[in-house]
Amino acid sequence: MEKTYKRTKLTMSQVMLPNQANVAGNVHGGEIMKLMDSTAGAVAIKYSRGNVVTARVDELEFHSPIFVGAMVTCTGVIAYVGKTSMEVAVTVDVEDLESDEPPKRALSAYFTMVALDKMGKPKRVSRLEIETEEEERLFQEGKRRHESYKAKKKKK
Amino acid sequence: MEKTYKRTKLTMSQVMLPNQANVAGNVHGGEIMKLMDSTAGAVAIKYSRGNVVTARVDELEFHSPIFVGAMVTCTGVIAYVGKTSMEVAVTVDVEDLESDEPPKRALSAYFTMVALDKMGKPKRVSRLEIETEEEERLFQEGKRRHESYKAKKKKK
Amino acid sequence: MEKTYKRTKLTMSQVMLPNQANVAGNVHGGEIMKLMDSTAGAVAIKYSRGNVVTARVDELEFHSPIFVGAMVTCTGVIAYVGKTSMEVAVTVDVEDLESDEPPKRALSAYFTMVALDKMGKPKRVSRLEIETEEEERLFQEGKRRHESYKAKKKKK
Amino acid sequence: MEKTYKRTKLTMSQVMLPNQANVAGNVHGGEIMKLMDSTAGAVAIKYSRGNVVTARVDELEFHSPIFVGAMVTCTGVIAYVGKTSMEVAVTVDVEDLESDEPPKRALSAYFTMVALDKMGKPKRVSRLEIETEEEERLFQEGKRRHESYKAKKKKK
Amino acid sequence: MEKTYKRTKLTMSQVMLPNQANVAGNVHGGEIMKLMDSTAGAVAIKYSRGNVVTARVDELEFHSPIFVGAMVTCTGVIAYVGKTSMEVAVTVDVEDLESDEPPKRALSAYFTMVALDKMGKPKRVSRLEIETEEEERLFQEGKRRHESYKAKKKKK
Amino acid sequence: MEKTYKRTKLTMSQVMLPNQANVAGNVHGGEIMKLMDSTAGAVAIKYSRGNVVTARVDELEFHSPIFVGAMVTCTGVIAYVGKTSMEVAVTVDVEDLESDEPPKRALSAYFTMVALDKMGKPKRVSRLEIETEEEERLFQEGKRRHESYKAKKKKK
Repeated sequence: MEKTYKRTKLTMSQVMLPNQANVAGNVHGGEIMKLMDSTAGAVAIKYSRGNVVTARVDELEFHSPIFVGAMVTCTGVIAYVGKTSMEVAVTVDVEDLESDEPPKRALSAYFTMVALDKMGKPKRVSRLEIETEEEERLFQEGKRRHESYKAKKKKK
Repeated sequence: MEKTYKRTKLTMSQVMLPNQANVAGNVHGGEIMKLMDSTAGAVAIKYSRGNVVTARVDELEFHSPIFVGAMVTCTGVIAYVGKTSMEVAVTVDVEDLESDEPPKRALSAYFTMVALDKMGKPKRVSRLEIETEEEERLFQEGKRRHESYKAKKKKK
Repeated sequence: MEKTYKRTKLTMSQVMLPNQANVAGNVHGGEIMKLMDSTAGAVAIKYSRGNVVTARVDELEFHSPIFVGAMVTCTGVIAYVGKTSMEVAVTVDVEDLESDEPPKRALSAYFTMVALDKMGKPKRVSRLEIETEEEERLFQEGKRRHESYKAKKKKK
Repeated sequence: MEKTYKRTKLTMSQVMLPNQANVAGNVHGGEIMKLMDSTAGAVAIKYSRGNVVTARVDELEFHSPIFVGAMVTCTGVIAYVGKTSMEVAVTVDVEDLESDEPPKRALSAYFTMVALDKMGKPKRVSRLEIETEEEERLFQEGKRRHESYKAKKKKK
Repeated sequence: MEKTYKRTKLTMSQVMLPNQANVAGNVHGGEIMKLMDSTAGAVAIKYSRGNVVTARVDELEFHSPIFVGAMVTCTGVIAYVGKTSMEVAVTVDVEDLESDEPPKRALSAYFTMVALDKMGKPKRVSRLEIETEEEERLFQEGKRRHESYKAKKKKK
Repeated sequence: MEKTYKRTKLTMSQVMLPNQANVAGNVHGGEIMKLMDSTAGAVAIKYSRGNVVTARVDELEFHSPIFVGAMVTCTGVIAYVGKTSMEVAVTVDVEDLESDEPPKRALSAYFTMVALDKMGKPKRVSRLEIETEEEERLFQEGKRRHESYKAKKKKK
């Protein structure tokens, strides 16, 4: 029987510094995307136990701006696993450390990562272990997104 | 009559350096996304003649890997203009300066930027001047994407 | 009665990139110290609800080297609170994401942070709420360190 | 007959960010020089189809200051080609994206680059193809500069 | 007879730039620690004529804040030499270049560095040449610190 | 009688790190130019006791390549002082810390800096105090360069 893996989940966090600001003085959107890409990469490396590469990013939404000095927490969790690809759902929450307010959702996105073998070619990844109905629902949603990307590609 | 603007187009390029590498030694995907975000921002600032903020990124696809030392050319062009938002189509081409081969498409994506007034609130942007059938087609495509984002948001 | 606070605890983590390497190709010790200082600062800002400054670092020990590509998790927890100063115990754990091995302790240190008011002068911080015997033991240890620093300073 | 090459010309551009500022808050002159050096290097790599090294920089003039947020466009073009060296004329133009004003010349300089073989030794470069009178004039000017550098060196 | 070495001393200095600021706008403490670590490393590499690694940092004290624009001078000098380890006393002085005031002590610390052979294993370092009573005193102080670290470690 | 100043001289040094490498793996020429510009700026700030701006760079020569890991020492000294401008002679020496060899000259250049008042306009600088024949010779050489720059500018 094929080996399966649990849904890998990882959190990366840091305080945003002035050298990550954009011209307007807020945190550069690109810095946040870089952090999200690192998190998605770490999740996929941990799941596939090897090197990975970003294949696509979808539905990346900025829900609220991020200020210099904010504590940023980026969470990635495996949503769907295909033959050689893994979809990682990434969310970003921000917290003003000087206030009593709870962290606030700032961004969300789906990153599709492809597992690579030692020669840099796509390699098979283990099947995802699904235990709850909620996990099944998330998996089916990811599968639908995955199939719609493939359909769009064919049309081009 | 309302003022209209031509489709702003801008190009940003740089040679990728070792300090932009990921763990595997290629260029960090996040570095490229940061460059794309900067380009989309510059296009939208030029179009709206003011500050802007990234609202969302869609269909960001990596078509081929990018190596340290490659000349990367990132092009952004206004695809669609809504009331306060602008969709910028961004493409990235890479060129190996030591070879005779032409540049190769490495990434593409759609960035939705929102124009901000001095108080940081969304402000109206001028209508897009459309002159050719091709421009009309691109505009209608952008409009469809814009409406599908809004539809998805309502469902959540 | 004076307000008390629980022992603030925060975790910051990131994957170490090639641009954080030293001449030998491992992660630059100074990069790790910077991450530890950021974590200690975030813990102290959250505890004191205001700006802080690093006053001293003691017993910073490197237990094992850190490689580029490692997932580094830096944890800070309030150990002792004086009139205007907070001692934060900081630990760093590293994990090789491609392996099944558990994270390994790589560094530990004590950071003494001072709370500042709006004018940049030291300000009083709330007393630490101590609930368990273990917390009392950690507090007394921190107090002993704090007093030995003051004693050394006088001798100079 | 010896192969000749056209005058390679390349453009590199970026929006200047706050992390490139100097103590006075404008863009650090050294950041601009680094961009100019990268552009000169890219032009020389493309012309010589191999690795190159900067040998000297002359007559680097700052015509106007550069502000954070400005779009900077750096253009390099082969001006003169010697046995193993190439002179690249580099100019920098800045544009305020929020205004309607055209880009403004901010810097100019001559970079002398030397082509290197696989062992890091200077290697011959192809002769420059000259088609117009203007190109001939630029070439002769470059030659005069090149010879004056050599004359100065001998005197030392 | 065993070869001995003089007390290596090195100075590293730089003007602090805005991209080294923390959230409060002063120089990030971690940036200074990184500079101190680099200086301690350079001193130890020069003394041991080979690669080294930071083993511990003790009694790092911030005596005064450091502002962006300040000229920072970091000095490292061998204080004590054990079998494979070297203790480097590191001090940091800051100078406001626009004023007539002399540089001011901003930080001090002891860095313990270990010499490594080509395989990354600790290697013996030469004995320290001691010529004056002052040098003997500093050596004995370093020895006491070194022994207290070892004693603490055993207790753990 | 007008106040005069001695020839300000400053030294800045650092160990070159992997994140300062160019595509070929050596130190990026632009990184060195940035360090030279910082040194020239610090010398001119100290001499003029105020803000300065780089006006031009001349005769910047790379005498030998610089490797990652090298200790780089950049020295700037006032060579000539005009009405509002100061010429700083900048030299760069490199040292392989693991070897017994003395530092080696790697670069030299002349930086012309202009003193600015609070409004950013050029301001008068104090006359240079000249004590020895050697200093007089250096001053006259600087004056000749200064006048040749002005002559060239007029011709353009």
